[in-house]
Amino acid sequence: MRAAIIAVGSELLSTTKLDTNSLRLARSLERFGVEVVRKSVVPDRVDDLIEELKYMLDRCELVITTGGLGPTEDDVTKEAISSALSLPLWLDPQILSLIEQRFTERGLTMPEVNRKQAMVFAGHRTLYNKRGTAPGFHLDLSHLGEPKHLFVLPGVPFELEGMLEHDLERWLRSTQDQSRFRRIVKVTGMTESQVEELLQPFYENHRGEPVTVLAGHGEVQIHLQADGRADDAFPRLMQYEQELHDLFGDRIFGLDDEQLESVVGRLLGSRGETVSTAESCTGGLIASRITDVSGSSAYFVGGVTAYTRDVKQFMLGVDPEVIDRDGEVSEEVARQLARGARRRFGTTYGIGVTGIAGPSGGSADKPVGTVHVSIASPTTTEHRKYLLAGSRELIKRYATQLALNMLRLFIVRGGTLDRRETPRR
Amino acid sequence: MRAAIIAVGSELLSTTKLDTNSLRLARSLERFGVEVVRKSVVPDRVDDLIEELKYMLDRCELVITTGGLGPTEDDVTKEAISSALSLPLWLDPQILSLIEQRFTERGLTMPEVNRKQAMVFAGHRTLYNKRGTAPGFHLDLSHLGEPKHLFVLPGVPFELEGMLEHDLERWLRSTQDQSRFRRIVKVTGMTESQVEELLQPFYENHRGEPVTVLAGHGEVQIHLQADGRADDAFPRLMQYEQELHDLFGDRIFGLDDEQLESVVGRLLGSRGETVSTAESCTGGLIASRITDVSGSSAYFVGGVTAYTRDVKQFMLGVDPEVIDRDGEVSEEVARQLARGARRRFGTTYGIGVTGIAGPSGGSADKPVGTVHVSIASPTTTEHRKYLLAGSRELIKRYATQLALNMLRLFIVRGGTLDRRETPRR
Repeated sequence: MRAAIIAVGSELLSTTKLDTNSLRLARSLERFGVEVVRKSVVPDRVDDLIEELKYMLDRCELVITTGGLGPTEDDVTKEAISSALSLPLWLDPQILSLIEQRFTERGLTMPEVNRKQAMVFAGHRTLYNKRGTAPGFHLDLSHLGEPKHLFVLPGVPFELEGMLEHDLERWLRSTQDQSRFRRIVKVTGMTESQVEELLQPFYENHRGEPVTVLAGHGEVQIHLQADGRADDAFPRLMQYEQELHDLFGDRIFGLDDEQLESVVGRLLGSRGETVSTAESCTGGLIASRITDVSGSSAYFVGGVTAYTRDVKQFMLGVDPEVIDRDGEVSEEVARQLARGARRRFGTTYGIGVTGIAGPSGGSADKPVGTVHVSIASPTTTEHRKYLLAGSRELIKRYATQLALNMLRLFIVRGGTLDRRETPRR
Repeated sequence: MRAAIIAVGSELLSTTKLDTNSLRLARSLERFGVEVVRKSVVPDRVDDLIEELKYMLDRCELVITTGGLGPTEDDVTKEAISSALSLPLWLDPQILSLIEQRFTERGLTMPEVNRKQAMVFAGHRTLYNKRGTAPGFHLDLSHLGEPKHLFVLPGVPFELEGMLEHDLERWLRSTQDQSRFRRIVKVTGMTESQVEELLQPFYENHRGEPVTVLAGHGEVQIHLQADGRADDAFPRLMQYEQELHDLFGDRIFGLDDEQLESVVGRLLGSRGETVSTAESCTGGLIASRITDVSGSSAYFVGGVTAYTRDVKQFMLGVDPEVIDRDGEVSEEVARQLARGARRRFGTTYGIGVTGIAGPSGGSADKPVGTVHVSIASPTTTEHRKYLLAGSRELIKRYATQLALNMLRLFIVRGGTLDRRETPRR
């Protein structure tokens, strides 16, 4: 089945807004093996939309529109569909009373303009919107022989999401016994090409199998997929995942939507351990990321952003002679920052980071992007030096990723950063 | 002139990638008053692209394609154009030698596949790519009477950017003596509807004038535009901006791309003043945002993320009796955090924030979203309480925005948060 997505809305043709709904739709469609062959954006104009609908319905078995279902004059999707397909609209008293009810529940009277949202297509299925006033529609246009379906969905992402799960995906499931199963395996602290290199045996075992490598935001994602009936495809996907675990070992930090800060948080929480931070070039971003996780107060005690020599010295106990000798951006200062945080906050672990985020401040032996990261534990202090590239914000972000990953590895490797042999089966 | 944008690339139909080039293109087009009436994404398939090109060229005077100009088999844009318009391609020896040169400069030999990139359209203008190997094209198809132009541009954003400035915008400028001038005026600490309300006199003075209000990320943007010849439109735009300054006064924190952290940094830097932070619910994000600005070490000394009662008490000197009486999320604790940071780091100002970012941890009298922000100065300590809505991350972000804006207002209002009368002219 070939699908096309039409996003309706003049604002989506402006210089600031993109049609992001199509990513969510593509995800639903991909799960059921439906190929998206075309996406388009059209303004809130009846004639343009009519033309677009006809063009798309001519070429695809499934067309999905989003947006243009609101109560204002700008909202013309239903009107355009009615013209394009010669389908009359009529007022559904039941939908009308549901819309009125949404207003009265809030102590409001329904404005007259909202009556328009109760207009539905005769002979076609109305999709009830639990999250808003605009109903959607599933128009089965297969009467001419070949299958042809038009889904008319709201543009508000939260409302769209509800209808995708409740209506579109349910229908897609009913049309086939084929599904697509997906898994994202996430690695950090490696470049994309290092990941590609390690993947060679996997590629050789599975020629033509669907595996995609994507890099960004300080992590590399390996996307796996398997198509087919659930009892066949799902075990195959699990097998792929196992092979990646065999190849990458503990360099894999998470799956699917997992974030590094949540993974680290879970590790600390389950062991009843705590952490604190002493940050120079990352400026507080490590502490901020750790506390992005709800419940992080169970294992995060506090942190210091030490932007001057004095703060490093007086609040974190960095030795001034070491600063004189090695400079603020140096291995020994990173180690002392980590130990200082640990001591100051009384935590199991301390994270210390010092570096040059740029764009200015670099020198020949300490170029922009030089970052020292250190983890202090009750028994030892580990250190790594990195040379990162990119803008100031990217370098900050990468450095936080490397620091969190270093703590993760230190814990899972049992109190050392040294890599044990990858288990093979 | 009506324009359409076609993005070529199967990856842009996937679940993760969007065609962001179209935003950049829309910006160039808008500057010259060209309306984008349609955007679409098509896969790397000759037949689909031919159909799309014909459809778009039928409807618009200007069609722009991005992508599909690379050396691989997937890159079919030129082939499709050649078929759709019956325009032969021929190998341009000069372009070929330029491509070869790019390789030899890097000590490489040009792979045979790259010859394809030297194929150009006979009788139409080739656009030289200073930033990559793929040339672009400007096809003037106006020979049938009405104006009709096709621009064929690369998909790599950096390469595209170069051709936009050098070729597309130059051509657009040549077609008209009309330009569009834009200004973004940014306000924070107000809701979108408060901004709309204050804008009423402006709307009344300028019926039908182009002003758009956009809200998000803790700020409200007022987009102004004026069309026409430079000597007429530009002064008009400046007049609009002045009227907004009269209406909003110091509630405007910046223009165009300015960020609040840069504005605050400039204020501090120019006065030789310094700042420090004591953060609870924002977890270090205020310090991180302040240090996102290059050169911030001139005015930012340091910060403490105080996630426990002990850290508040022992590192920032918050009175334990006050915590017992009012709780950690309270006005007095915020004030003591601000004063504690100021004292601890020896700065001109201290910022203190405590609150409940959620999703858990709220209660009836202190619901999720309760945030206390305080600014301590050498002479006084100011405080504001807010009730914010949204996810944990949004509440954190809003709280940092409110705190930075409070510091900004405190400085520009001369050591108080009280609003002076807006100057009128």
